[in-house]
Order: sequence, then structure tokens, then C-alpha cells
Amino acid sequence: MQTTVGEFLFTRLRQAGVSDVIGVPGDFNLNLLEQIEDMEGIRFVGACNELNAAYAADGYARRRGIGALLTTYGVGELSALCGIAGANSEHLPVFSIGGAPPLFATQNRFRLHHSLADGDFDNMLLSMAPFTATAVHIDSTNAVEEIDRALHLCLRKQRPVHVQVPSDVSHLRIEAPDTPFDIRMPPSDAERLEAALAHVQDKLASATRPAILTDMDADRYGLIDGLRALAHRGHIPYAQLPTAKALLDENDPLFLGTYAGAASSADVRERIESADFLLITSPRFIESNSGNFTAQLPFESVVDVRNHRVTVGPDYYEGVVGAELLERLVDAIPQRNVANTVADAAERAPAEQDAGEPSDVLTHARLWPRMARFVRSGDVVIAEAGTSNIGLSAQRLPADTAYVASNIWGAIGYTLPALFGSLLAAPERRHLLFIGDGSFQLTAQELSSILRYDQRPIIVLIDNAGYTIERYILGMERAYNDIAAWDYARLPQVFQSDAKMVSYHASTHGELEDALTRIESSDQGAFLILKLDPKDAPAGLKTFGPAIADFDYGPTGPRNP
Amino acid sequence: MQTTVGEFLFTRLRQAGVSDVIGVPGDFNLNLLEQIEDMEGIRFVGACNELNAAYAADGYARRRGIGALLTTYGVGELSALCGIAGANSEHLPVFSIGGAPPLFATQNRFRLHHSLADGDFDNMLLSMAPFTATAVHIDSTNAVEEIDRALHLCLRKQRPVHVQVPSDVSHLRIEAPDTPFDIRMPPSDAERLEAALAHVQDKLASATRPAILTDMDADRYGLIDGLRALAHRGHIPYAQLPTAKALLDENDPLFLGTYAGAASSADVRERIESADFLLITSPRFIESNSGNFTAQLPFESVVDVRNHRVTVGPDYYEGVVGAELLERLVDAIPQRNVANTVADAAERAPAEQDAGEPSDVLTHARLWPRMARFVRSGDVVIAEAGTSNIGLSAQRLPADTAYVASNIWGAIGYTLPALFGSLLAAPERRHLLFIGDGSFQLTAQELSSILRYDQRPIIVLIDNAGYTIERYILGMERAYNDIAAWDYARLPQVFQSDAKMVSYHASTHGELEDALTRIESSDQGAFLILKLDPKDAPAGLKTFGPAIADFDYGPTGPRNP
Repeated sequence: MQTTVGEFLFTRLRQAGVSDVIGVPGDFNLNLLEQIEDMEGIRFVGACNELNAAYAADGYARRRGIGALLTTYGVGELSALCGIAGANSEHLPVFSIGGAPPLFATQNRFRLHHSLADGDFDNMLLSMAPFTATAVHIDSTNAVEEIDRALHLCLRKQRPVHVQVPSDVSHLRIEAPDTPFDIRMPPSDAERLEAALAHVQDKLASATRPAILTDMDADRYGLIDGLRALAHRGHIPYAQLPTAKALLDENDPLFLGTYAGAASSADVRERIESADFLLITSPRFIESNSGNFTAQLPFESVVDVRNHRVTVGPDYYEGVVGAELLERLVDAIPQRNVANTVADAAERAPAEQDAGEPSDVLTHARLWPRMARFVRSGDVVIAEAGTSNIGLSAQRLPADTAYVASNIWGAIGYTLPALFGSLLAAPERRHLLFIGDGSFQLTAQELSSILRYDQRPIIVLIDNAGYTIERYILGMERAYNDIAAWDYARLPQVFQSDAKMVSYHASTHGELEDALTRIESSDQGAFLILKLDPKDAPAGLKTFGPAIADFDYGPTGPRNP
Repeated sequence: MQTTVGEFLFTRLRQAGVSDVIGVPGDFNLNLLEQIEDMEGIRFVGACNELNAAYAADGYARRRGIGALLTTYGVGELSALCGIAGANSEHLPVFSIGGAPPLFATQNRFRLHHSLADGDFDNMLLSMAPFTATAVHIDSTNAVEEIDRALHLCLRKQRPVHVQVPSDVSHLRIEAPDTPFDIRMPPSDAERLEAALAHVQDKLASATRPAILTDMDADRYGLIDGLRALAHRGHIPYAQLPTAKALLDENDPLFLGTYAGAASSADVRERIESADFLLITSPRFIESNSGNFTAQLPFESVVDVRNHRVTVGPDYYEGVVGAELLERLVDAIPQRNVANTVADAAERAPAEQDAGEPSDVLTHARLWPRMARFVRSGDVVIAEAGTSNIGLSAQRLPADTAYVASNIWGAIGYTLPALFGSLLAAPERRHLLFIGDGSFQLTAQELSSILRYDQRPIIVLIDNAGYTIERYILGMERAYNDIAAWDYARLPQVFQSDAKMVSYHASTHGELEDALTRIESSDQGAFLILKLDPKDAPAGLKTFGPAIADFDYGPTGPRNP
């Protein structure tokens, strides 16, 4: 059928699940914005800047299965790059579009604004290539093929891609296929699937101490349903890496707890490291989810289920789709009905109640268990790097909680724009954001977009005068970890004079209870500012901080006194 | 002498003129922050995020001759990249330092936070290389050589450089030279200098219509004093590109005006394009400073004076330092004392007075001449891309005004952090910032740093509900050019509860006069919010916008109705 390059691009994105393209206008993309305006079922959503837009597209992709970002050449693309790289690090399909200068101008090496004015137009793609599955410049002769290729890569690899569209190309007419885009993975190689299944089934049948250990790719590659079914049918206990928090129900009797090498409880560690069948989902062990590289998986017992490969001990089965293998495996094994064999019962004790007095000043030790009890099944909980993520990681959350954190990339400031994107993608879910003051200041203006689009999240801000995670690593008393003292509570009405979002302050546990009660009874969103001591921190940070200093700075380097 | 890698690095920066290292803490750079804290004459200055820090370092470099930026690995470096690339585009020496993971971990390809967790640690430098004169990873075996090499490149090329310092390397002891860093350019090749001088002198002696045309490199390569002396001694009229605004006195009788190809006045165009001796300073013609590529310099008459090369017509003199050539040339030519021959007297007419009534609503036509009259000799005037830069570019500014704009890179949001950096570098000068609301929202949090460091600029914000420069290119009525309506005036006291910065509103010219009177009599800084019609614009934008649309979108692309 006849269409234009831009219409084809946005039609494909819509077919892949995108209804909101997040970005910032610029002269090299206004032409694309015109095309979005004229289309049904897809819209442009403006963010305050491009890095925030990229983080929002990442948050959107986590809920919707794909996110889309639109920036302008050079200044926009490079501003977004940290967010695009973050989507790569966290394995998220963000389709990034850069409006580029007109083709005749770049091919003739004109000196242009938004470039280095040296006739070089390859440098942007060179810079983005290391962080994307593909970074490509299209024209009307390759638009159909390159757009479809990039979209397949984005979804199948669960990685960001970047497509530059010259500003004089978007409206050129092209012939494009009538068939809608197929977002499914290519099916497994049939023989390899049978071989892998037989091997895994055999290994499981002979196992007496089976276990499952999830990492984030279980989510990214659509393995969650299969893993849940497998655990229940085979009565297989499961643990999660910190980077896979709450992907499977943390309150199920089969849930062992969180595994992180030497940072695990002894019981969880033993159950994982001595398993004789350990199904894993392409774990990536970094400092924070491995107890500083002390994880030791039982190599001979490991079954690694990936997107398009299954590994059983030393044997590789290429071309086997993980989700297909799990589905077949569940059908192939008998239902086991046995009493709960999970030893780690202590971790499943009923949630503790507050032990202290209402007049007690807020402490992290008491705060995070309370916040976990505030979470309801179905909530999206977004936790900023630092005290929020560390504090919440130690708590069990209700079933069907979606937990969002930048666990590997760890870019501070990520979560506020990610909240904006997540609410665009899943407005029907209640959203809770937990963020520190230092992080909040990086991307604070995106609260304005949240209000502008009438989103009503509950935002909990830890107001403790700086970068507490850094203080515990180095510079506990140093000024470089201090930040400006904002009057955060006034921001909603600065960003939108008639904003209905109500701000609350709490510096004691009693004040916190009062605020939570009022927040629970409102549907207007809330901005809850919690005053905490700069030198208080969740227990996890108190051990993590010095360990990071040892790792980072070596024997001759500095330490906190 | 014995020192450590980090102390050597910061000693070198201090010797080059850096007293403020601007950045954001992260675990891979806290070790470097410790070293800065322990040194005299150099300090760390925290910005709210890394892109803002990079813009601030750019603003600092414009006043101080060099700026320094400190970020952490991956998340910090990439967040800053747009600002680093901007320094490249605008030819500014920004020395960027990235705290990197410990050497043993990267060399053994550990999976780490702030990376893609794939063992690849080359990707950050690969991404930064296209935008820096060098992007290099140091260790204790090469620190002295690489740091000195990078610093020489930074200053001699007037380009950003990026140096990654592993977190376990900063405190290693090394042997370093006792001699301080020499910031001077290597001198000219003596024979080439004499040959170039003879050629230029000869060409000038025979010229009857000489002229000088400046671009920004006249500033970057230290040619301003030489050009001023040459113009006055030889009685040579001069013009400037829009990208060289106010580098030479715009009120001198020798000042012809602004040259921009067909966008120049007929007189200026004729004086430049028919000159028989035209001294230029490596001009870079982009859309906005060339009348959309209509500039036509008289090739045979051109003398191009660069940092380390002089070109006379078709002849190249490599190894000739531009500043040296100018100094010699001024000494070599006779003083000419003639009546003013500059024809463009109309442009030097006394500044017009307001023609309208105090009750008239603000218009761009009347606003910018008024703001130009508000500028005092010695001020630093910072103009954001869009209406501010276009509006002020058409006005003449007093002698010794420093004019700051991102004329080529054109990144919106640049100027507020650049103001912060410029005030760190030159606190003794009055600073005026002119910025639009859309641009302000990109980097708004840096107002908090301005207040935190007790800076007292005058900030004029054009509150006109969106991206007016984009509206004139495309989408005059489209929602994609709209932004959220902030209550800007409340921001100073949100960012610092006891801030003394006073906010003012004006929507008429009378209100503007009242506000300016009050601002003039205060030394507390001011935040002046001007309400303008979203569809009003300076005259220059009304012609520039549609021309850009023609250039960008081609015959099949969209246009404003």
C-alpha cells in the first residue's frame, strides 16, 4: 500500500503497542510531530527535556512491552543517551527516533546547527551505536526494511534501537506491506526444542533439591507465567535476585527469599548453591546482587532459560525459545502435591507491626516495613537508587506488585520521569514512587509533566539533605554530598497553579501515620515529604557502603573514618 | 616530585586556571572529591545534574579560558555528553573527568553497576571520542603524560577532552615534574611567520577596501586584542558574524555591522563581499549566520588567521600562530589617521526611545531595544537560543559586553546552567540572562545552585506558553509546541526559603519600566517574568522560521498555513 515514511514508522509502532511517543520538539522533528498529530491511536507526549523523556520511555516500556522516544538531531539525541543506555543496561525495548537534518544537506556535508559544524553527520550514530541494538539512518529507499528490522531487534533483543529520520524524508511516499507487524518471537527450532525438553525433564525428574532463581530477564523475555506454573506444578521453591524483585509472588509458600551470594540468608544460599536442578533466567551478577561477587551457582545443575537459547549444564540448545520450553515442561511433568518444604519460614512471618511510639522521629529501620505494608496488590512501586531501593528491597511486597528500579544502570534521577512514563502506559494502576532528595533534584521538572497529564501518583520523598548512599560509601560529613534545601512541598502548585496534588510533611512516625491515612482516602495523588537524619540509612546500606569503598578505592584509597 | 595521580591532575588544572571543578558525586569519583577537598585554590562545586554541570563548565570556560567537569562513570559521563559535544561545537576548552571503576575490575571485565553489565568498558570512551579532542583512560603508568597531553589538546585546540580516572588509581603515588604547566601555544615557526607577515603586509598595503570579519574563533584563539589594534592602527572597518556578537565594540565608528550573507544590510554585504583585503578568523557558516548559505567571501582577498595557521588567498602558512601574526602586523603597518569611512551610519544612530505607551502590552519589537539599553558596559549578557538570542542579536550592545549564546550547538536549556558557571568564573561582573519558558524548563533546577552559591544575576524569562521559535518553523497552533504553565516567580523561594532574589512580573511596557527601575537599585539579583503573546516574535524569527521550514522539510514536507 502507498504511505509515507513517517506514517509507516508510527503505524508500525502502534502495531507494536505504542500509543504515546514521548519526547521534545525540535526543528528536525516537527515534521514527524505533524504526522503523529494526524494519526489515530497514537499521540505525542512532551517531556521537559530529552533525558527525562528517555527515562519516561523506559518506564513506559516496562509496563507496555515497548516504549518510544522522539528527539531532535544532536542536542536531543545526545541528551537522551544516558537514558537510552540505561534501557540497554536494564534490557528494555525503547524505540528511539531522532529527527535528522535533510538528506541533501548531510550528504553534501553542510555545516549545520545542532552539529559540530564540520560536515560530520556520522558522529551521532557512532556515539549511540555502543548502547543500542542498532543505530541507523534511513531514507526512502530503505525505510520499510530498516524500520521493521529495528523494531524486531528492539523486541526480540529487548534492547533500545535508534533510527534517524531526515527531515525531508518523512513525507516522501513509499510502498509498504499491508500486513501488520508481528511482534512474536520466531518459534523454536523443533528438533532442538524436543532435545532441550528431554534433557531438562530428565534432569528435573532425577532432582531431589530443585530450585528456580529469577533475574530480570524472566520479565523481559516473557517467562513469568511459565515459571509460576512450573513452580506450582513441580512444587519447586524459588528465589529471586535483588534485580528480579517481586517478579514472582514474594508471599507464596514456595518463595525462598532473595539470593545475593554471601549477602543472602544462610538458608537461601544453601538452597540455591546446593540445588541439584537450578533453573535460572540469564542472571547478571553485579556488585549489589551478588554480595560483591560471592555468588556461586552449581554449574552442573544449572538450566539457563533465555530468549532463544536453553543451556543445561555444559550443553547449549540454540534456537530454543525459553517461554516455549517452559510451557512444554509444565505440560510434561506430573503435578506434585506435597507439604511445603521451604525452610525459610521466618522470612514469611506476618508483617511486623510498629514497635515504637508515634512521637518517635522517623528512622529507616521502621519506615520501610511500614511503607511495604502500605503497598497494595496491583500497585506499581518505583524505587529510586539509594536508600529507597535498598530499604524496599529488604521488604516483601504483595502479589502482583510491579517493582521498578534501575538496579544495574543505577542512574539517579531515573525514577521520577519513569513514573511519568509508567503512568502513561498503565494509568489504571496505583503508582507509588519512593525517591531521595538528591535524586529528585536531577529530574525534578518532570513532576510538572505528571501534573499536566493529570496523573495522580503517590510520591514519597526522603528529605535528608543530600546523597546518603554516597555518604555511606565515602564523605559521611563532606560538603560534596550536601545539596540545596528545597521547599519541596510547594512544587506541585508552582508547576500547576490549580494542582490538586496535596503535599504532606512527616518527621515522626505518628505524623507519617496521619499522612498515610489521609492519602489513602484521596484519589488526587500525594506528595509526602519525610524528614530523615542524613546519617540514618537502611541496614543494607550500612554494610553495602563500606564494602563498595573497599571494592572501589583499593588499599591506598580513602575510607570513611 | 612525589605526588598522587589525583593531586597531579588537580594541580595541573589549577595551573591552567581552574579554581572550580563542577560536577555531581558518584561512587567512582568520591575518591577524587576527597582529593579536591584537601587541596588549596581549587574546590568542587555541585550542580543538580551532569548535563547542567557540563553547561556550567562551558559557561565557566568562556570567561576563565578553561572549565572543568567531574562526573561518575557511565551514567554521569553520558548524561553530560550533550554539553561536552556543545563545547566542541562552540570551540570551548572543557576538561572533563570521569571517575571510572577500579582497574582490576575493568581489566578483568567484571559486570558492574553503571555499565551494561556485559564486561565492556570501552563503550563510554567510544561514545565520547567523536565529541572530544581526546577521550582517554589513565592509570598510574601514563597519568603524567596523558593528563598533560589532554590539557595541551584542550587549550591548544579549544576543544573538550575527557579523562577517565579509575577509582583505585587516584591515590597511587607517582613521580611528576616540578615545573608548572605552560598554557601558552608553542611559538610560530620563525621562517613561516616572516613569510606570512610579508605576504599579509603586502596585501594590506595594496588594498583600498580592507575589512575584518570576525567569527567566534577570534575569541577562542586570543585574537581580539590584536584585531582591535589592527583595526584602529590601519583604520580598517570590521564586521562580525552573528556567531561573533560583541567580540569587538559594536559602537566604534569602524564597526560596519553584522554580516550574514543575504541576511545582511546591503551596505555591510557589499563592504565584505567586495573587500580587496578581508581578514577573517576561521568562520563557520551555518544556516543562521550565513543567510541560509548565501555568504560569498572574496576568496582571493581573504586572509584567514587561525590558531596555528594563516591562509592568504590560496597560500597556506602552517605553524603560524594567529595572535603572533597580528601583533607583528600591527607593529609593521603605519598608523592611519583618516576620517571615518564607514558608510553604515544608520546602524549607529542613537538608540531609539520607546515610541509607545506605558499601558501597551509587551511586544518583542519594543522589548529587545529596551533590554539592549538596560545593558551596561562590562556586563555578561547570556541569551538563550530562540527569541532571546534572535531578539538581542539585532541590537547593539555597549563596549566590553560579553555576549554568551550557544549559536551553533543551539541546545535549548543551555543558558541557565551556563549562567551558573559564568558567575563562578567571573563573580565580579554583572550577569544578565534572557531565556524563554520552554528552554527554562529543561534545566530549571540549576536556579537552585545559583542561589545556593549566593549568586545574584538578573534573569529575564519570556513567559509565552511554549516553544515560539518552533511555532515559527512549524506548528504555530499545534499542542506539541505547548508547555506546562509554571508559576515561575515562586521558584527562588522554593529552591531556597530565605532567598533574597526578588521576582517581578510585567505584561506591559510600563510594568517593565517599573521593574527595571527597581532591579537597577538592588544588588540581590532579580527574576523578571515577562508575559508575551505566544505568536509574537522578533522580526528576525518571523523570516528565519519559514526559511528553516523550507530548508528542513523539502517540497513534499509540511508548512505552517
